[in-house]
Amino acid sequence: MRFGSDNLHGVAPELLTALEASSKGFHGAYETDGFAQAIEASLSSIFEREVKVFIVATGTAANCLGLSVLIGPYDVVFCHGESHLFVDECAGLEAMSGGARLLGLPGAMGKIDAERLAREIRRFDPRHVHSPQRGAVTVSLPSEFGTLYRRDELEKIGEVAREAQIGFHMDGARFANAVVASGQTPSALTWRCGVDVLTFGVTKNGGLMGEVVVFFDPQKARDFAFRRKRFGHLLSKSWVAGAQLQAYLENDLWRKLAETANRANATLAQALRERDMGLVWPPEVNVSFVLMPRALFAHLRQMGLMAYEWTTYSLQPNAPIVPDDLCVVRLFCGFSTTDQHIGELIEAVDAYQGPVATIGEAERLWQQIDAAL
Amino acid sequence: MRFGSDNLHGVAPELLTALEASSKGFHGAYETDGFAQAIEASLSSIFEREVKVFIVATGTAANCLGLSVLIGPYDVVFCHGESHLFVDECAGLEAMSGGARLLGLPGAMGKIDAERLAREIRRFDPRHVHSPQRGAVTVSLPSEFGTLYRRDELEKIGEVAREAQIGFHMDGARFANAVVASGQTPSALTWRCGVDVLTFGVTKNGGLMGEVVVFFDPQKARDFAFRRKRFGHLLSKSWVAGAQLQAYLENDLWRKLAETANRANATLAQALRERDMGLVWPPEVNVSFVLMPRALFAHLRQMGLMAYEWTTYSLQPNAPIVPDDLCVVRLFCGFSTTDQHIGELIEAVDAYQGPVATIGEAERLWQQIDAAL
Amino acid sequence: MRFGSDNLHGVAPELLTALEASSKGFHGAYETDGFAQAIEASLSSIFEREVKVFIVATGTAANCLGLSVLIGPYDVVFCHGESHLFVDECAGLEAMSGGARLLGLPGAMGKIDAERLAREIRRFDPRHVHSPQRGAVTVSLPSEFGTLYRRDELEKIGEVAREAQIGFHMDGARFANAVVASGQTPSALTWRCGVDVLTFGVTKNGGLMGEVVVFFDPQKARDFAFRRKRFGHLLSKSWVAGAQLQAYLENDLWRKLAETANRANATLAQALRERDMGLVWPPEVNVSFVLMPRALFAHLRQMGLMAYEWTTYSLQPNAPIVPDDLCVVRLFCGFSTTDQHIGELIEAVDAYQGPVATIGEAERLWQQIDAAL
Amino acid sequence: MRFGSDNLHGVAPELLTALEASSKGFHGAYETDGFAQAIEASLSSIFEREVKVFIVATGTAANCLGLSVLIGPYDVVFCHGESHLFVDECAGLEAMSGGARLLGLPGAMGKIDAERLAREIRRFDPRHVHSPQRGAVTVSLPSEFGTLYRRDELEKIGEVAREAQIGFHMDGARFANAVVASGQTPSALTWRCGVDVLTFGVTKNGGLMGEVVVFFDPQKARDFAFRRKRFGHLLSKSWVAGAQLQAYLENDLWRKLAETANRANATLAQALRERDMGLVWPPEVNVSFVLMPRALFAHLRQMGLMAYEWTTYSLQPNAPIVPDDLCVVRLFCGFSTTDQHIGELIEAVDAYQGPVATIGEAERLWQQIDAAL
Repeated sequence: MRFGSDNLHGVAPELLTALEASSKGFHGAYETDGFAQAIEASLSSIFEREVKVFIVATGTAANCLGLSVLIGPYDVVFCHGESHLFVDECAGLEAMSGGARLLGLPGAMGKIDAERLAREIRRFDPRHVHSPQRGAVTVSLPSEFGTLYRRDELEKIGEVAREAQIGFHMDGARFANAVVASGQTPSALTWRCGVDVLTFGVTKNGGLMGEVVVFFDPQKARDFAFRRKRFGHLLSKSWVAGAQLQAYLENDLWRKLAETANRANATLAQALRERDMGLVWPPEVNVSFVLMPRALFAHLRQMGLMAYEWTTYSLQPNAPIVPDDLCVVRLFCGFSTTDQHIGELIEAVDAYQGPVATIGEAERLWQQIDAAL
Repeated sequence: MRFGSDNLHGVAPELLTALEASSKGFHGAYETDGFAQAIEASLSSIFEREVKVFIVATGTAANCLGLSVLIGPYDVVFCHGESHLFVDECAGLEAMSGGARLLGLPGAMGKIDAERLAREIRRFDPRHVHSPQRGAVTVSLPSEFGTLYRRDELEKIGEVAREAQIGFHMDGARFANAVVASGQTPSALTWRCGVDVLTFGVTKNGGLMGEVVVFFDPQKARDFAFRRKRFGHLLSKSWVAGAQLQAYLENDLWRKLAETANRANATLAQALRERDMGLVWPPEVNVSFVLMPRALFAHLRQMGLMAYEWTTYSLQPNAPIVPDDLCVVRLFCGFSTTDQHIGELIEAVDAYQGPVATIGEAERLWQQIDAAL
Repeated sequence: MRFGSDNLHGVAPELLTALEASSKGFHGAYETDGFAQAIEASLSSIFEREVKVFIVATGTAANCLGLSVLIGPYDVVFCHGESHLFVDECAGLEAMSGGARLLGLPGAMGKIDAERLAREIRRFDPRHVHSPQRGAVTVSLPSEFGTLYRRDELEKIGEVAREAQIGFHMDGARFANAVVASGQTPSALTWRCGVDVLTFGVTKNGGLMGEVVVFFDPQKARDFAFRRKRFGHLLSKSWVAGAQLQAYLENDLWRKLAETANRANATLAQALRERDMGLVWPPEVNVSFVLMPRALFAHLRQMGLMAYEWTTYSLQPNAPIVPDDLCVVRLFCGFSTTDQHIGELIEAVDAYQGPVATIGEAERLWQQIDAAL
Repeated sequence: MRFGSDNLHGVAPELLTALEASSKGFHGAYETDGFAQAIEASLSSIFEREVKVFIVATGTAANCLGLSVLIGPYDVVFCHGESHLFVDECAGLEAMSGGARLLGLPGAMGKIDAERLAREIRRFDPRHVHSPQRGAVTVSLPSEFGTLYRRDELEKIGEVAREAQIGFHMDGARFANAVVASGQTPSALTWRCGVDVLTFGVTKNGGLMGEVVVFFDPQKARDFAFRRKRFGHLLSKSWVAGAQLQAYLENDLWRKLAETANRANATLAQALRERDMGLVWPPEVNVSFVLMPRALFAHLRQMGLMAYEWTTYSLQPNAPIVPDDLCVVRLFCGFSTTDQHIGELIEAVDAYQGPVATIGEAERLWQQIDAAL
């Protein structure tokens, strides 16, 4: 019962087929393999705009390198305080930008609020040589809490960014899930809102490895190629990443994989709701955050559940928001989650005798968190 | 009427005399000049402990280099969100540490609260390779708002630091003013509370240039000498900084200069209070933050006042805390501020016909700021 | 006729089989997948010593991160002036070490000479705070010229490193080829000569992606895990790299793949010699550097040869070593080079009517290069 | 008998007078003090061109920050292998540029040869993303060996720089001595030869502290102000450096101080030649490198001489160039060296009974060094 993350899954069979098909014979190295241009053409079509793209090995590299060309080495990057960039990249942004500052903003449901952003930007005076300068804002779509920015929310942030003359980056590690869930076009969620560069996720959505950095204005890529190389992110057998990526983009496979994951999560969330179990943030994509008694979590783990207790900053026990006997558990569905997988989990839940944490309790928790922000 | 900062003042005459006395003849370079050991002995005596000291050109260098040896290159340094380190060093910490993260905490009266610090530290899991690691906490004494940490407040922070196994740094750009105002010994305010390294300020207190980085455990200095050199902060004619510093430390001159500045400010603050003018943060050292109508500020500037409107994050107009027609003005006294200087300023105030912002209004403002934190 | 590099080849089928076998179902991420320990055990066995290993995405990352934990941020790393580290990593070492200095040494046949190394080390005084400090030496085995260090040559370098108290790193991008060609054990070529850390190559020898950083003393790995993560080199679907690596190490597959490549090159070299064509550096592993008329190179390219003219520093036309009408062509064999491939190339050579550059000319060139060093 | 370096001297009395005159009263901080513009005007006049200038605390900072705005973070800076930048700045360039590469070239008499430079530049292919890029060349005038580039030599280097589209930096720590000795105008030695930025030395020529970074095209300064601040090199009491600098530039004082030092050295060199003592590099400015028996050096030190044995790379004992019983001693004159100082040293020499190393031996040594390069 593996619900810890969507990166625990295997690889979509279409990608392996493509890999195998390319694995004999020879290919140009360092993106002279033919796939690179095909992928750029595919993505230009998907985004309805001429884009410039680069493949790198990880999301950390994609985010940090993508941001590094939008900013100067003493600039501030504004992110959410519980974003992957802030929490899970071990100060990668500082390292790969020449010493930029990463400023984590609070925000309900894991999303940056445009007005709060504007306020934070004003802390740094562009005419003042003592001050770190205004560099870029980055949002995660979906957020690390599985929530989606509405289009108008993104547009407001894009407006703030434009007025402040800062870059607008998007961490789309699960971008496919967001596209599918929102029903919006990829362009509507990105460059039409002012996004300059996107980390287009692959690995979490059935991919083998790698993520794509997408620039919506090729000029803005600047010297990305050199920066990528010097931090060790130019793959020699680029055809490996390329072949899988081409298959990933063909026939809307990337959408279908995400749809499967989202639907599985919808099924799961529905089943949990039917049991009056509280979900903390609305399950909009492929993840559910479930409020449950610790005893239930222990029971589920004993029955084979692999999942993480969610203990992010918003829920720090210092502010006694989550009562001791409860915890928030993060359940991820992926491209290979089946009804059977969901069924096993629900059976394990039903085998638990004690009380659950109700929808009402979750709502109250949710409000307390927001109020504390 | 120069009240903009204490770094606008000249130089204490004793220091020039010392400089002149040393200016003929020859001296060893790079701290082989004889002054270095004398200064270390002086400071060891002042701090009642064997210390290891290094002179650098600026406070930015002192803070960032001092912190850099307490931490690893992917660590987090916790500071106040309106500290000099955060606001006025143009991401110097990130640059001189190999990419460490600077996290700015909110805190009433410009001071870090120990419990808040403990909460923030808990965001970063030391067993988790994805997470930036816990590096150090830094406090400013006095704070940038001219407020003093009480001894028990420092001890609590020291305790949190010790438990979390992080370094404890102190930005003492105006340390002399704090020592004199608090009536505490230098040791009581530093290593006895767990402080590992102090920026011992010189320039703002009548000095020519430079600040001293003081390590309370010589071992903790690690490879500071190399790091200082490679960032261009090893002075060749070190006797220049050394001669002034020796004079600065002799006969308690450093205390006397600070006392003059503090007393001048007390006089000023008293005169302002007598006119029911509101001071925002308690004037504990040599600076007063005065709430006044913009019209009064304009009048004073017209009459020759050189001072800055204080617009720090806590007072951002977005949160309409300071009404449009009011502003907070920062008034600094220095070692060469005389009663005559104060008199001129008060005369200019008295020449103003309109109403002032009262003590009551300032108190209300103060409460609003704290409530919003 | 793809002879440009060994990274143009596909992937050994055994690795794809292993990948496919693992591609369904679930795996732990970030090296909690079970493969990591198995690989460490395998390599410990291969190296006859308990090793600590880390997988990263590229050779650049492996080299730079591996070196970064052996040195301080202002240290000097000594390498060959035509090594991959110096020429082809876009200043990756400087970037991932906090600003270390990379010093490229000259050396005949692409190899560092121990006495020259000792002389270069002496330029940097360890007691002198002005001087960059002595950090590490790095050798490539095989060298970028396809030459092998003899065991006594490695031992001498190890001795120099030990005496100077600096680290000893080995870039083994083609380590398998060296092991097979030399007939030595992996341990004899590494830790028994004093090597601290090795980049154990995978991608160029039939692998999918990635290289392994091997520490021969687990303690020396220090905080590698954090540094790897913060530069974006911790793969989430680590089982992908892990599964291929396990298959790569099983049943001496890594040796067999290299043997195939080496043997193909021996066949090629022999055929060229039989035609009195001059090889510049002795073809000891899987690459031949052939001196030939430009006209012949053009002819071969016209007939479909994909290969690079070799124009490294030692051969710079400024020092008119290579006559205008000649050039050096680098021909790489890989794990999937067949007799048929070789045959096609030789046929194309034989179809050329004009004169070739003889073995005698190549020997003279070789001597000129060495004399100029 | 202090001949170790010109930074062992005191301070020119005119500068102290200027300092004292400014030391009472108030001054703007961070270069709002009025001196900054006056100094820029002075230097614009001296260089016959509108320049943009910045004061920093040390030569290391001046060189590294000045170069950092000419290049990208993965570029190569070409310098002489025995330059201050290479040997004595503890990898400051790597640190303050975001990881640029410093490549040290050999060159007779401490000077870079334009043809050698062109050859080295060709190692780095600008169209090749794997390669560190071509950034800048830097020369020291005078060189660290006290030798001067002739104007045509500088022009050739400027031409090579222009063709390769790289920056041209000059370390003028002793620029005054070079101007005076060469009889050339400051402009002839700098921008008229293509130099983009100069470290205009102050401290070694009777100054108190600091050096000036001079940009000959204000546009090329780019974001220097931010980079200076973030590395801690923006002085708050800038009037201190400013006041001394204004006096330094007034009435050609900077020329006179250098003239005194040069003349003293000429006197010294003449006296040594009269005693058939060999000088290794031509004493063109204020330093002489004297070949002498170790026994003589010991005798002189016993008699009070403070000077350094010169053991730079060109003279490494590995290449047995300097016989064991001889050594090269570096003797510096400064602005306050008098005939009496010289007299004392010559008397001490004359008190030595044994043989000296002759002019002939020095000439042979010189030739051997050049031949070995």
